[in-house]
Amino acid sequence: MKKREPVHCRVVEKAARDLLKERGVELEDIAKIVYDMQVQYNDGLRMEDCYDSVNKVLEKREIQHAILVGVELDKLAEKKLLSEPLQSIVETDEGLFGIDETIALGSVLGYGSIAVTTFGYLDKEKIGIIKELDTKRDSSIHTFLDDLVCSIAANASSRLAHRLRDQEERLREEERETEHIS
Amino acid sequence: MKKREPVHCRVVEKAARDLLKERGVELEDIAKIVYDMQVQYNDGLRMEDCYDSVNKVLEKREIQHAILVGVELDKLAEKKLLSEPLQSIVETDEGLFGIDETIALGSVLGYGSIAVTTFGYLDKEKIGIIKELDTKRDSSIHTFLDDLVCSIAANASSRLAHRLRDQEERLREEERETEHIS
Amino acid sequence: MKKREPVHCRVVEKAARDLLKERGVELEDIAKIVYDMQVQYNDGLRMEDCYDSVNKVLEKREIQHAILVGVELDKLAEKKLLSEPLQSIVETDEGLFGIDETIALGSVLGYGSIAVTTFGYLDKEKIGIIKELDTKRDSSIHTFLDDLVCSIAANASSRLAHRLRDQEERLREEERETEHIS
Amino acid sequence: MKKREPVHCRVVEKAARDLLKERGVELEDIAKIVYDMQVQYNDGLRMEDCYDSVNKVLEKREIQHAILVGVELDKLAEKKLLSEPLQSIVETDEGLFGIDETIALGSVLGYGSIAVTTFGYLDKEKIGIIKELDTKRDSSIHTFLDDLVCSIAANASSRLAHRLRDQEERLREEERETEHIS
Repeated sequence: MKKREPVHCRVVEKAARDLLKERGVELEDIAKIVYDMQVQYNDGLRMEDCYDSVNKVLEKREIQHAILVGVELDKLAEKKLLSEPLQSIVETDEGLFGIDETIALGSVLGYGSIAVTTFGYLDKEKIGIIKELDTKRDSSIHTFLDDLVCSIAANASSRLAHRLRDQEERLREEERETEHIS
Repeated sequence: MKKREPVHCRVVEKAARDLLKERGVELEDIAKIVYDMQVQYNDGLRMEDCYDSVNKVLEKREIQHAILVGVELDKLAEKKLLSEPLQSIVETDEGLFGIDETIALGSVLGYGSIAVTTFGYLDKEKIGIIKELDTKRDSSIHTFLDDLVCSIAANASSRLAHRLRDQEERLREEERETEHIS
Repeated sequence: MKKREPVHCRVVEKAARDLLKERGVELEDIAKIVYDMQVQYNDGLRMEDCYDSVNKVLEKREIQHAILVGVELDKLAEKKLLSEPLQSIVETDEGLFGIDETIALGSVLGYGSIAVTTFGYLDKEKIGIIKELDTKRDSSIHTFLDDLVCSIAANASSRLAHRLRDQEERLREEERETEHIS
Repeated sequence: MKKREPVHCRVVEKAARDLLKERGVELEDIAKIVYDMQVQYNDGLRMEDCYDSVNKVLEKREIQHAILVGVELDKLAEKKLLSEPLQSIVETDEGLFGIDETIALGSVLGYGSIAVTTFGYLDKEKIGIIKELDTKRDSSIHTFLDDLVCSIAANASSRLAHRLRDQEERLREEERETEHIS
């Protein structure tokens, strides 16, 4: 028997992006949160930088896998297909249930301490689309999804902060080089 | 409408313990791993200390929740009830899929650095019941369970190491007190 | 040569508590932050519950060690005794330097997801004594200490949330028992 | 007063690399560990791939900062310049002291679950240069450095595993494209 080939990364990435869309989360929604979080540290920040950063975060295997697992659990809970007592715990988004945050944190820890503090802040303050997901009144369940969105936004924010510094340092060098020349 | 009461902790704990048993993992199996990991640091270690430590770890909400989620995903994968591509990824226990470890790590990080290094070691060396779960040839799927067992064993090991020190320090104090008296 | 005995836990705990006091942080200051974070979830919360919870958190080895290391680095930086470029990085509390948060996070991860999100929130919002430490205008350096205080407050908050639930569940059981009797 | 510019990343990176060398750790030593850990999963692995991967890991801010802090503490302990009881704890590399692992783990968590399990394994098995650092008989202290080396090796290993998969997937695509053409 031929050893089964692993699922191609393109397939996984497309599935993760499709799931976000299907569950009502557009990349623009996440980019807006990133903008709100980072504009105070970066006057020249443009919305498209935030969008690009969100896009880059979604290229990572770890966040894609987290989306596949988290949204699957939300959808199974909506269809009442989880076993008890897990079904009740996920359905009611119990305060002491932390596996949703644990899964989301997995990828946050990879983006450094700015990502962790931004994640914690967003998870508590629930701004923008995160608030909408958290307060939906219909039968939809977003216990895992809202933490995943916090995670993507936090990672994209941290990524921008690091890139901004890289840019500034390149500028400083160029200035110095120009000074040397003149 | 009355606000729904959260699931009682007794119900959650019983469900988690039942799931381990149902999936073929006895507390004795985990205690044996703990013994193997800790006996080198503690001559007087008894198997029942290891068993008690495993028992205590299973009283924690975080590990109970991790078991509920992880085993649910294993069982759904066995029944081919997960959506693609998640079904294929879990079924084949893909090397770069890390959500199983992320969920297990969530509770490991709570037991300090000895738990983390023991977890990493067990996840690589796969001794005892962890090996059995990992190499089962039938149609059963233990992608999440084997990491959960590593986590429980690692936490119980770290707990023992900390308790051993506490005991030694109490002994030292008593000796000193006796010296003062005599 | 007799093997050197490890430092007794009492000595370590006293040193950690003394350091907090020496650096201007009273347990009451941290308890106030805990109260502000938790009163919204718990009407009957009393300041002394918060104080007790902070006290319990300080009994943990991991947080004691973190305090010893973090405050040592702050004090060395004040005395200009660190090597460059570390001296400049700690002195200016550089935004992309994350070891202060990493050390503080080490113990936060042990208190579950509520601790992590509370830590992130506090690190961003900097309320109470955390704000005071962060904005001191004299030559004192609190690069590590302010994260440590966030960590202690976050851990004590998470501890309270878990205990509150435990209490409620005991109450529910007692009520039920009373119902059965009557 | 002009706001002080942050230390340039080139300066930080050079300092971190110089410290490793100064403390007796060559990149080749770490590359050898990476090779030993990854060759079992990758027949065609060459030593220079491992060296390159170690090199790339050392370009990351987080690991550079961890090296600056960890080696500073080791050196201060050698010179008996830490306050008690921290001096004794670091000097004897106490088993329950975990801040060394916490600092090292900070960057490991950023490289995904393979990095975490490899880190745990290396920290327990202590192969190659890690063993040498751990068993040095002279007055040198490497309490933090040995965990840092575990971290760099674990991160470089995880990086290689992810890159290997990326390569395989590109190959698969090229094959398919060739099939379509012919």
